[in-house]
Amino acid sequence: MAYKSIHKKLQDLQELIVGDMPITRYLQFSIDRYDENGLVLSAPLAPNINHRGTAFGGSISMMATLAGYGMTLLLLEDFEVPYHIVVQKGNISFNKPVKNNFKVICSHPKRDNHDRFKSMFLHKGLGRIYQHCVIQEMGNNVDAVTFTGAYVAFRD
Amino acid sequence: MAYKSIHKKLQDLQELIVGDMPITRYLQFSIDRYDENGLVLSAPLAPNINHRGTAFGGSISMMATLAGYGMTLLLLEDFEVPYHIVVQKGNISFNKPVKNNFKVICSHPKRDNHDRFKSMFLHKGLGRIYQHCVIQEMGNNVDAVTFTGAYVAFRD
Repeated sequence: MAYKSIHKKLQDLQELIVGDMPITRYLQFSIDRYDENGLVLSAPLAPNINHRGTAFGGSISMMATLAGYGMTLLLLEDFEVPYHIVVQKGNISFNKPVKNNFKVICSHPKRDNHDRFKSMFLHKGLGRIYQHCVIQEMGNNVDAVTFTGAYVAFRD
Repeated sequence: MAYKSIHKKLQDLQELIVGDMPITRYLQFSIDRYDENGLVLSAPLAPNINHRGTAFGGSISMMATLAGYGMTLLLLEDFEVPYHIVVQKGNISFNKPVKNNFKVICSHPKRDNHDRFKSMFLHKGLGRIYQHCVIQEMGNNVDAVTFTGAYVAFRD
């Protein structure tokens, strides 16, 4: 399998998400980074605004759902077998208003969760993994919103 | 306060939601009913489709968030004092794929929850209420997705 640069990988992921789930284009999100801190998506406030001039909870939920989906997809790409992913559960807590452009940081699953997921997926053809995300205003490292999503991967 | 027909009330609610949270227009949702079964919103599958040809989890989350918000707003309208609402928590379980146009049914809060909410809001200026929604395909009464949201109302 050809080596893909991180930049190309994230560009492909963004195109895949917007192509497959066309409503997501209206978030005007971008995929910014995939490094030791996890996967980082961001979106401007303006298209996601609510009646309080802050970010709409529905937009934040959608962004968090995508970040967890993206992280799951990037894990699966490493296994190099065909798959599809569905979101099974989502749990979100809005702790503070998001008053600015914002980012979603989906952290890497812990090593043992990752290993269990990989083993179940490769041996049973079905694995579940929990992804944890935080939402922060740009230029601010306070967790305004926290999200945990359960994703199930099926071997195709 | 002038009497508003249910039809006008739902039309106003839809305009308010789309005006205040403009990204919601892309769901192409409508507010269909507000009766003894609760508040019912619906949306076509096409603009909310995902990579599996079923409804995208992020769209369903957004629709459910709106249905709970709408139900909370309709309760507050009855109290006839100024308010604003924020969503505090959301908990969603995707049990079955949604393969068709779909509806979200937000049921009426139980009487004692409603009364506690009303009392807290009117006396303390701040009340919290949990709203329960189910998502079903049109023409099918199987609960494909369940959602519980916590909403907080502040007296303005």
